[in-house]
Amino acid sequence: METAYVLVKSQVAHEMDVMGELLKIDNVKEARGTFGVYDIFVKVEAKTSKELEDTITKNIRKVKHVISTTTLSVIPEQDKN
Amino acid sequence: METAYVLVKSQVAHEMDVMGELLKIDNVKEARGTFGVYDIFVKVEAKTSKELEDTITKNIRKVKHVISTTTLSVIPEQDKN
Amino acid sequence: METAYVLVKSQVAHEMDVMGELLKIDNVKEARGTFGVYDIFVKVEAKTSKELEDTITKNIRKVKHVISTTTLSVIPEQDKN
Amino acid sequence: METAYVLVKSQVAHEMDVMGELLKIDNVKEARGTFGVYDIFVKVEAKTSKELEDTITKNIRKVKHVISTTTLSVIPEQDKN
Amino acid sequence: METAYVLVKSQVAHEMDVMGELLKIDNVKEARGTFGVYDIFVKVEAKTSKELEDTITKNIRKVKHVISTTTLSVIPEQDKN
Amino acid sequence: METAYVLVKSQVAHEMDVMGELLKIDNVKEARGTFGVYDIFVKVEAKTSKELEDTITKNIRKVKHVISTTTLSVIPEQDKN
Amino acid sequence: METAYVLVKSQVAHEMDVMGELLKIDNVKEARGTFGVYDIFVKVEAKTSKELEDTITKNIRKVKHVISTTTLSVIPEQDKN
Amino acid sequence: METAYVLVKSQVAHEMDVMGELLKIDNVKEARGTFGVYDIFVKVEAKTSKELEDTITKNIRKVKHVISTTTLSVIPEQDKN
Repeated sequence: METAYVLVKSQVAHEMDVMGELLKIDNVKEARGTFGVYDIFVKVEAKTSKELEDTITKNIRKVKHVISTTTLSVIPEQDKN
Repeated sequence: METAYVLVKSQVAHEMDVMGELLKIDNVKEARGTFGVYDIFVKVEAKTSKELEDTITKNIRKVKHVISTTTLSVIPEQDKN
Repeated sequence: METAYVLVKSQVAHEMDVMGELLKIDNVKEARGTFGVYDIFVKVEAKTSKELEDTITKNIRKVKHVISTTTLSVIPEQDKN
Repeated sequence: METAYVLVKSQVAHEMDVMGELLKIDNVKEARGTFGVYDIFVKVEAKTSKELEDTITKNIRKVKHVISTTTLSVIPEQDKN
Repeated sequence: METAYVLVKSQVAHEMDVMGELLKIDNVKEARGTFGVYDIFVKVEAKTSKELEDTITKNIRKVKHVISTTTLSVIPEQDKN
Repeated sequence: METAYVLVKSQVAHEMDVMGELLKIDNVKEARGTFGVYDIFVKVEAKTSKELEDTITKNIRKVKHVISTTTLSVIPEQDKN
Repeated sequence: METAYVLVKSQVAHEMDVMGELLKIDNVKEARGTFGVYDIFVKVEAKTSKELEDTITKNIRKVKHVISTTTLSVIPEQDKN
Repeated sequence: METAYVLVKSQVAHEMDVMGELLKIDNVKEARGTFGVYDIFVKVEAKTSKELEDTITKNIRKVKHVISTTTLSVIPEQDKN
């Protein structure tokens, strides 16, 4: 299973709509509003890295009111979870 | 259950030792090496916010070779997970 | 009493309107225009963390011309003030 | 009265020592441990801007284990507090 | 004489208009397009700190197509120039 | 031959259009979508530094949906490639 | 062929040693000193993503005087080069 | 004449020593302590870009207690000063 964490900045005051849309996306396992530098934390899991990329580029980044995304791609080889 | 996500910068070339130590900490549910601006992603869950804070300030930030941590505190009221 | 500091970026040239609106919000104890990376500094105090969160997510982030907010949540357990 | 807010990064695991030292400094009115991008928030107040500067450059920045400081200087003319 | 350096981000492809407007402002001594994190560097000099602030908040930040400004206020006491 | 690397932030969901436009520009040798803090990486090569600058300021920064660019100018004297 | 771009911060005044070491690493195709936020730009190419990761985590990040690395992983599916 | 602005982070509490050394360097026209994200602002002017680069890489970056430098290279073609 491939994992990535996506740190989302959403348009101010639209966090709840964005989160609602994110949670509808198949490979999104977690979506939470957060304080700090980013507005929403998203955990994505998919069977292949191609599917992982599509989820980020074709679903998450297309959600209305998403301003920017910073992706932390997991280094599989270091994964002890 | 209280949740927080901690983005860790570790001393270069010490990621694996840091991750090993992090995964020994009780409330750490996930610790993964990542590419991008941060080196390690950590998910923390605890029964109370006091316990959550202690895990971050007294355990995670005391692990050898951790240089800095950026905490994304979850906004409970926005949590639909 | 729960405290948080919120670092606000406002739309250029609208700082004074934003500050005026911020100072009308009940739990906002301080709102000052600042030089540096952020445009306005806000200190929030509330009786409960729920109330603190609502002040930030439902009041401060809904003020017109606010572009982004970075929240520094205070670690109660470290508070010696 | 001149005001400035100083966002401090401290050496990991030394936050409490740093805060103890900061709170001993005359013009430091508040010093709190925070989650997020910075480790400690400091509020400084002094009679003159010269005194304010000295407090930051000759006291705060000389406290052991302080790694960096980011100062938000208040714009007096915008101050409605 | 009071000095400040202002690092300006301008709307993409509007740098030249912004620079033209900046150079018309009295206390602006230098305005140059730059590569790197910021788009335009501005040096401001004024007789008083009040005048310096006004130049930044009431002139520079009101120039069309300016998106954000990061001000580096000079610490007079450290000035050996 | 003069080289520069340009890190582009594009409007969310417009990465492919932006990349298509970038690859049409003469001196652009590489343009790739990337995960992380930036959306698109661009390598520019030109015969003179004047031509390099024009490619960045008059072509790349004028492509529709480009929000910001951060240029890493190569230090010729350190170039061992 | 898998590609990644790595933005390196090196210990001040050690750029040339770091670059010398980087250019000895098999999958490093380019390593250049740069002005701006980062000190050295590195282009890595490898046959598999596993090999790409190893080059970054086991070679690049182990070079003496490297302080931090920010990796831009290329999104294969968007690659038109 | 070639110009560049260099934003210096110095080791905490060593700003004055660093500034003293910087002002001894031939092509350094200005060096000032600043509040905000950076500790010292430096203006460099030289006859050729080669000389400009050497001043930054071989003089400024070799000054003791300099931690990092962020260079804003001026875009000559946009220079109306």
